Amino acid sequence: MVASMRIAPNLLRTCKQLTVLPRMVSTKILTVDNINPQVITMQYAVRGPIVIRAVELEKELAKGASKPFKSVIRANIGDAHAMGQKPITFIRQVLACVTNPSLLETGKYPADVVEHAKALLDGCGGHSTGSYSQSPGIDLIRKHISEYITRRDGGIPSDPENVVLSGGASESIRNVLKLFVDHRKSKKVGIMIPIPQYPLYSASVEEFALGQVGYYLEEEKNWGLNVTELERAYQESLKKYDTKVLCVINPGNPTGQVLSRQNMEEVVKFAHKHNLFLMADEVYQDNIYAEGSKFHSFKKVINEMGAPYNMMELASFHSVSKGYMGECGMRGGYVEFFNLDPDVYVLYKKMISAKLCSTVLGQIVMDCVVCPPKPGDPSYDQWLKEKTAVLDSLKERARLVKEAYGSIEGVSCNEVQGAMYAFPRLLLPPKAIEKARSLNQEPDFFYAMQLLESTGVCIVPGSGFGQKEGTYHFRTTILPQKDVMKDMLARFTSFHKKFLEEYK
Amino acid sequence: MVASMRIAPNLLRTCKQLTVLPRMVSTKILTVDNINPQVITMQYAVRGPIVIRAVELEKELAKGASKPFKSVIRANIGDAHAMGQKPITFIRQVLACVTNPSLLETGKYPADVVEHAKALLDGCGGHSTGSYSQSPGIDLIRKHISEYITRRDGGIPSDPENVVLSGGASESIRNVLKLFVDHRKSKKVGIMIPIPQYPLYSASVEEFALGQVGYYLEEEKNWGLNVTELERAYQESLKKYDTKVLCVINPGNPTGQVLSRQNMEEVVKFAHKHNLFLMADEVYQDNIYAEGSKFHSFKKVINEMGAPYNMMELASFHSVSKGYMGECGMRGGYVEFFNLDPDVYVLYKKMISAKLCSTVLGQIVMDCVVCPPKPGDPSYDQWLKEKTAVLDSLKERARLVKEAYGSIEGVSCNEVQGAMYAFPRLLLPPKAIEKARSLNQEPDFFYAMQLLESTGVCIVPGSGFGQKEGTYHFRTTILPQKDVMKDMLARFTSFHKKFLEEYK
Repeated sequence: MVASMRIAPNLLRTCKQLTVLPRMVSTKILTVDNINPQVITMQYAVRGPIVIRAVELEKELAKGASKPFKSVIRANIGDAHAMGQKPITFIRQVLACVTNPSLLETGKYPADVVEHAKALLDGCGGHSTGSYSQSPGIDLIRKHISEYITRRDGGIPSDPENVVLSGGASESIRNVLKLFVDHRKSKKVGIMIPIPQYPLYSASVEEFALGQVGYYLEEEKNWGLNVTELERAYQESLKKYDTKVLCVINPGNPTGQVLSRQNMEEVVKFAHKHNLFLMADEVYQDNIYAEGSKFHSFKKVINEMGAPYNMMELASFHSVSKGYMGECGMRGGYVEFFNLDPDVYVLYKKMISAKLCSTVLGQIVMDCVVCPPKPGDPSYDQWLKEKTAVLDSLKERARLVKEAYGSIEGVSCNEVQGAMYAFPRLLLPPKAIEKARSLNQEPDFFYAMQLLESTGVCIVPGSGFGQKEGTYHFRTTILPQKDVMKDMLARFTSFHKKFLEEYK
Repeated sequence: MVASMRIAPNLLRTCKQLTVLPRMVSTKILTVDNINPQVITMQYAVRGPIVIRAVELEKELAKGASKPFKSVIRANIGDAHAMGQKPITFIRQVLACVTNPSLLETGKYPADVVEHAKALLDGCGGHSTGSYSQSPGIDLIRKHISEYITRRDGGIPSDPENVVLSGGASESIRNVLKLFVDHRKSKKVGIMIPIPQYPLYSASVEEFALGQVGYYLEEEKNWGLNVTELERAYQESLKKYDTKVLCVINPGNPTGQVLSRQNMEEVVKFAHKHNLFLMADEVYQDNIYAEGSKFHSFKKVINEMGAPYNMMELASFHSVSKGYMGECGMRGGYVEFFNLDPDVYVLYKKMISAKLCSTVLGQIVMDCVVCPPKPGDPSYDQWLKEKTAVLDSLKERARLVKEAYGSIEGVSCNEVQGAMYAFPRLLLPPKAIEKARSLNQEPDFFYAMQLLESTGVCIVPGSGFGQKEGTYHFRTTILPQKDVMKDMLARFTSFHKKFLEEYK
């Protein structure tokens, strides 16, 4: 339903063209009638029609068009630098040195930056970042990642051989999902994903023609995972699918919850009981804000739970795009496998080899994240100061957003415990819902588009992430810097009042 | 056949484990018995078992192991920097400035580098290369690419809107192939690919469960395309497949031919007659060495041929990994679409949006390639000198390789007109073929593995690219620098003599 809604504008246009110009369309070899059907049905709302319209509006403003607002505020995507966050100096100094090694000899860079850059260049073919790396990534960086994981998890060992770098975490997530595809079988493999969820999952599951098995997060319990609901979703799925995978996003996207240790143990027991492969999206592991919240990796939890849980198959993902660094454009990420069948792993590495390797500079940013300056290193103080400033500011904005949305009539908002998003609920008046339906739009899509056209604020409707029937939400990032954030909240509040007035 | 051969070592190991340890294997959720079957059958020889062994040998040498050689020479992959080619200064200076913009103010960089970097940063969200770009790439870079294409093709217009950047050309090639997948249909879409071919094509066709339609290149005519052979392959394919796509690699990989203008017109007429979508892999467009050879883009040719050919659907690919820059690790590339159905294009852009964007720094390297210093710019002289030196040296090595392999008994080698490879033919003695078969190996795989173990020279057997039944070849790059190249040719010649002696 949701999927068919969102594509409406394109398909409508297509239908019109098919009606008006049948000859023109039919002369093409590749058309919407014979294209990969999964490409038609897959949807990725974070870059959907509302965002496309936001980009158009920005271009119109740049050309001097008159609008009821002076700027577009893009709160649709977790893109920290685009919202004014400054890069971490250490990372950028290392990048400059590895791209232009003549800088190493200038004496202008701190000794630890120079040392770090030299070690990385030693790991590159011909000492150049312009060489391909091995497909799983540069050996030294895989080693640093596994050392980081070991430290993070309080000493639970990690083997560099089980770490594979990729162009952002997305690429690894998609590669792992792809392993479960089998078009010969009549029953698709079912992939359990949260609702609401980050639409990379629904889009990839759809693109690969896997089976989407949604389990609802409990809004009333700050978007926690309820095992009864997991069980319901699993049992129902078996009618259609051979369900084999459980995806968990922690901290949550778009929902901002941080799973408690106890909740994670329940989830692990559930997954073990049904022989499910665990995919743990842990890209927000550095983004924890709430008092009493703490990040636990699934790897640590299953290991500490002991046998038989420590034998479970797990793929855990991390990225350079989030955390305190927010280096989205660099496309760095990794997957760590745990207990993967060794023969499957051989095939995995073969599969990714056709794409040669992920960007070496993205790998290097990942290295700077997992192997930052240590106390006593010349770069340490500045690095710590910058990191702390970003995380403190995000924490403040997480609080600000919850308070602001929570105080508006007809909006409710859970605490943003972690990650980079709030997912407030909208109580839309029946007349607004009616109006949206008359336009063949989801009510929260209608709301979000009106908000954009009236105020320039770009958010993503909840229907793009999934939500309980009859509820409406939107996702907003907490990334706008404080002054922009206040501007955004003011624009939103004013629009929302008018909207309620219009449709009361 | 070839595919099943190459996987033999892994599968054999798997089979053994299944026999010896059935319980261990069966406890896993994801196993070789239920993994995506396309992942088992797909093969990518450029990073296959011989290369894996080469990496092992390098590690053994580094640990001080005694071998009959002191170094591994990796002639298996077109990885210029790994083989000692130096980066182009202009590209690396721009990269340093966009990653660490404080360099812009130091006065140490040429004015055109600074200007270039500033313009690119203006195109990035929040002026940071750490921001996501739009999924098709940064607008300014798409514009520069289309201006480059227009210049290259003598004024034939190119629209920036039709250009989409990607992580290397490979990603674009795979994305376009994916459009033709339809698992609902009993007849797969057939993709015509050359034999020998760059195994990205066979691997991706296999991974996506498309139909591989091989057409043989004519070794006797310097690996040219023969329309009679295209016709044969096409007609035969129709029994099994709904053949819709013709892939052409020009200049050729692994075969090094440069198509003549006349040959291209024949190919275009063939494609038009059968309503085939053209995929033109033109990543070696700057690598032309032979007297009288010239690069013509398929876009230029179909436009100059006029109607109805200028209405044909075409996707053309380019990359930063080859040419004179060889920036493989940066993962920059693009596809230009021509005459693509507009609704298909909307869906294409939606499909790639789930992967967010390709690496921004890879996009920036692409920009430096399509928008290099102009005469009169402060960086121009050095840029031209460096570019010319690389291309002149490649030209010399292309000649050297052909002469060397051509002069060895039992080896023949076509002229390397372009690209970065020679694909010499091996006349193997029947006893060697017998020996290989007894080991369940392809004869040229057997030869290449022996060569590696005895001399450290790593080449890729012809069976990884496909070849006519009963013929044996190998692919070697022309990338080793001149002294290494001479060393490699000496090692090869000495091994080859001994091999012929052993199996005579």
